[in-house]
Order: sequence, then structure tokens, then C-alpha cells
Amino acid sequence: MQRYFVTPDQFEGNRVVLTGDDAHHAQRVMRMELDDRFIVSDGCERAAIAAVTAAETGRVEAEIVIELPMDGEPMWSVTVAQSLPKGDKMELVIQKGTEIGAAAFMPFQSERMIVQYDGKKEAKRLERWSKIAKEAAEQAHRSRIPAVEQVRTWRQLVASITAFDLALFCYEKEGGSGGSGLRGAAAAFRQSREAAGSGTERANVLIVVGPEGGFTEREAAEAEAAGAVIVGLGRRILRTETAAMVGLACLMYESGEMGGD
Amino acid sequence: MQRYFVTPDQFEGNRVVLTGDDAHHAQRVMRMELDDRFIVSDGCERAAIAAVTAAETGRVEAEIVIELPMDGEPMWSVTVAQSLPKGDKMELVIQKGTEIGAAAFMPFQSERMIVQYDGKKEAKRLERWSKIAKEAAEQAHRSRIPAVEQVRTWRQLVASITAFDLALFCYEKEGGSGGSGLRGAAAAFRQSREAAGSGTERANVLIVVGPEGGFTEREAAEAEAAGAVIVGLGRRILRTETAAMVGLACLMYESGEMGGD
Repeated sequence: MQRYFVTPDQFEGNRVVLTGDDAHHAQRVMRMELDDRFIVSDGCERAAIAAVTAAETGRVEAEIVIELPMDGEPMWSVTVAQSLPKGDKMELVIQKGTEIGAAAFMPFQSERMIVQYDGKKEAKRLERWSKIAKEAAEQAHRSRIPAVEQVRTWRQLVASITAFDLALFCYEKEGGSGGSGLRGAAAAFRQSREAAGSGTERANVLIVVGPEGGFTEREAAEAEAAGAVIVGLGRRILRTETAAMVGLACLMYESGEMGGD
Repeated sequence: MQRYFVTPDQFEGNRVVLTGDDAHHAQRVMRMELDDRFIVSDGCERAAIAAVTAAETGRVEAEIVIELPMDGEPMWSVTVAQSLPKGDKMELVIQKGTEIGAAAFMPFQSERMIVQYDGKKEAKRLERWSKIAKEAAEQAHRSRIPAVEQVRTWRQLVASITAFDLALFCYEKEGGSGGSGLRGAAAAFRQSREAAGSGTERANVLIVVGPEGGFTEREAAEAEAAGAVIVGLGRRILRTETAAMVGLACLMYESGEMGGD
């Protein structure tokens, strides 16, 4: 069933209204008619199945048929902090990361970033990235749309680290591993939570991925001093956008999203 | 250091010759001069660091400085069987899969495939896919280039299943999970190998991913009858190209490529 995300004010009691692109999609792409059903969610508090009651150009009204539970979100709420990559790679990180289960995206600047950061283009890019997250969330049947946050400076990124229960910093020194593997840190975190009886509470995890040029030694040291754990993603050299997807997939695996062991 | 894959006959004793695209890349892109060094590998038996001794248009000669061990390949040799997806998604699967650590790619046809299979275009596509695997292997510092196999029919794919130590078939029924999660099957496989004392031998694992339209129930039943284990990749609906990357990343994680737990 087609899924649309709406703002909370598009719900009114037992009715919901689709507007703009969503109304266009329902009418022109899905060719919905009276009584046709779709899933609608405000991405945070309410989800329901609704049936079309009226349609005019740019506006589709529907009646709530049944409320749905807001669930299916991973137990580890993982924020992907990605140093701005070249070209449209950030879009790939957001699209695939949303499918895989990211809770939020935190783009940031770092020393060896190749892309030229342009504050003026910022608002437009954030809008585009948020749209990609929304579409991927609909496609992947997520209950929530991951937030795409404002681009942080390196200082702001480092200051964010303490807010998380676990912060992983992906870093490989030239010619050798930087820290231990991701699994050591992720499995130890899971075990310590289980031992403390908090294994069933939601955990906030940050995974920090560098730009094409990697992080500097100084950056790695600053992140570690701020509380991050330095981890490697194996012996192969991953492109920056691949590292985010692989790290996130492995965290989902470790947290139990693909069954237990 | 730049890495080039060559055919075994490009090695001659303690010399190696780059030709074609590789020679062009070394001369025009890397602007290599006499004595500049690069890594060269035949992708199966020999790898070395070589220093440029002579260069002319389309041909770079180099002398072996030191032989390198052929290692760094994952303990689980994972073949990604991907039902042909639309557009250029197969290229993304091969590029990212090579980075993540796939041993081979096995494209195949299945019932709900959206793409129109065209045997005539086959040779050209395979050539392009193999080139992508080669370039990604160089970029990721792999010792081996993953093979991209001929497109199989569904029957041929099913017949291949018994050749593997573990075959995982990614399948989710509409509205519920098809089998248990990937982790159940992958962790049980690792544990049984460790219990049998074969945990340090290379294992051959197959992961089978469906097309955009998914597999039919009949296909899932046939794969299971042939010995595959039906697994899910979590509660989110992954695009076909994302499923291959996520499944592969999790298998690398389980097999110990990102450290132990």
C-alpha cells in the first residue's frame, strides 16, 4: 500500500488531507479513486490507513479507516555523521542510510574535505536532502523520517559526541588499522547494556565517517578525547559513502534488527 | 600507492609491463616518471611493488622492487547472486560489493524481474561489469578481482546452490517476515564451523537477492528445497541494490572482518 508522510496539522480528527506533491502523486501516479486506501503518517506520532473521500486538483481528502501502531524503528537510534563528500554522494548516503535504518544525518566539515563548502547553497541542499530522506522513508516503510541536520563545523561535531551513549569514529591509519574493528566496540556496547538491564531501552549511537581524503591524526585524537571510540571497518579501503552504509548496516545487525544469535 | 591489476603474462621474471588503459592512467593521470612506484597484481597469484624503468605511449615498463603477500581477502568467500535489476543498479551492486568484500557476482534471471533480458547485449554488459569490478578492487586495495559470472537462468541459479557451504535466500513475504533474520543463519553457520574445528578454513557462502518485484513464493520454495536458508534483512523494505550491500556487509561483520566480539 502506498505510504505518505504528512505534517501533523494535515490530520483533523478522523480525517486527513494530502496536498502538493503527495496529492499529485496519489492522483496522477497512483490514479487513486474514491475508497482507495493508503497509509499516512506524520512521521512521529500518528500513522493510519485512510480511504479517499474526495479529490480535486492538488488536494485529496481521506477518512481514517484504522490507526496503526508507530513501531518498526530500530532499538539503536543511529545518527550518521558524514563529512561532506563530493558530488551527489551525500544523497546516496541519505537514501541508502534511510532504507537501512538511520535515525538522523549530521553533515559536517573537516580538514581534508575535498568539496568546497558553500553556506549560501546550504538551505537549498538541506531541502533536497530532506526530500530524499522523506521519499526513502516512504519507500522503506519507515514510521519516521530521519532528520537531516544543519551542516556542523568540526568543532560543533566534536561537541556533539558526548550527547550519545556510544560514538564510533571510523578511522584507518595509512598502512594499518587505527583502532580495533567496529565489532569489538559495538558488541561490547550491547553486552554492557544487557548486563546493566538496559538492553531493551532505546540507545543513541553516533557513527562518524570522514571525507574522501580521510581524517587527520589530530582530528582522530580530538574525537577520541571527546569520548568517541576509534574503529576500523575491515581491511578493504571503503569509499566514504560506502563506509557510512556498511557501518550502519553492521550496527543494525549487532543491535538485533536481523534476528538474534 | 596506485594499484594496477594485470594479466599474469604481463609479469616477466622481475619485470612487469602496463599497457592500454593502465599505461594511459599511469602516464596521463598519475603522471608517473622514472623510478615512481606502484602496486601491481595479477589478481590471483602474484602482487608486488614495482618502479617505472621506461615509458612510451601506451606502454610502461617497471621493475619489481619487492614481492607482496597475497592476503587480505575475507575468510568467508561470498558470492552475491543478484537478479538483474533495472538501469545501472547492477553497476552499483558490483562497485560497492567489491569494496565491501564480495568474492564473485552471479547475475541471474527470475520471474518478477522488471528489466527485459537481452542476450545480445550480454557480452558488452559483462565486459563493463568486469571493468567496474577491476576498478573497485584497485580502489579498495583488494588482492583479487571478484569474478562477474555469465547471467544464469533461474534453473541454473537453483542448481548452483549445493556448491556452497551456506546459501542464504533473502525473502520477505508481504506483511511479515519470510524466514528468520540473517543473523540467526549466519551466526549458527559460524558457530557450527568453530565447533567442527573448521573456523579458520575459507568458507564459500552464497547470498541470493531478488529483483525490484521480489521473488515469488514458488521461487522461495524451490531455493529452500535446493538447500538455501530463507532469511530476512530486518523490518525495513530495502531496495534490491541495497539488500545486496547490506547482506554482504553483515556477512563480513559476522565472519570476523571487523574484529571479534
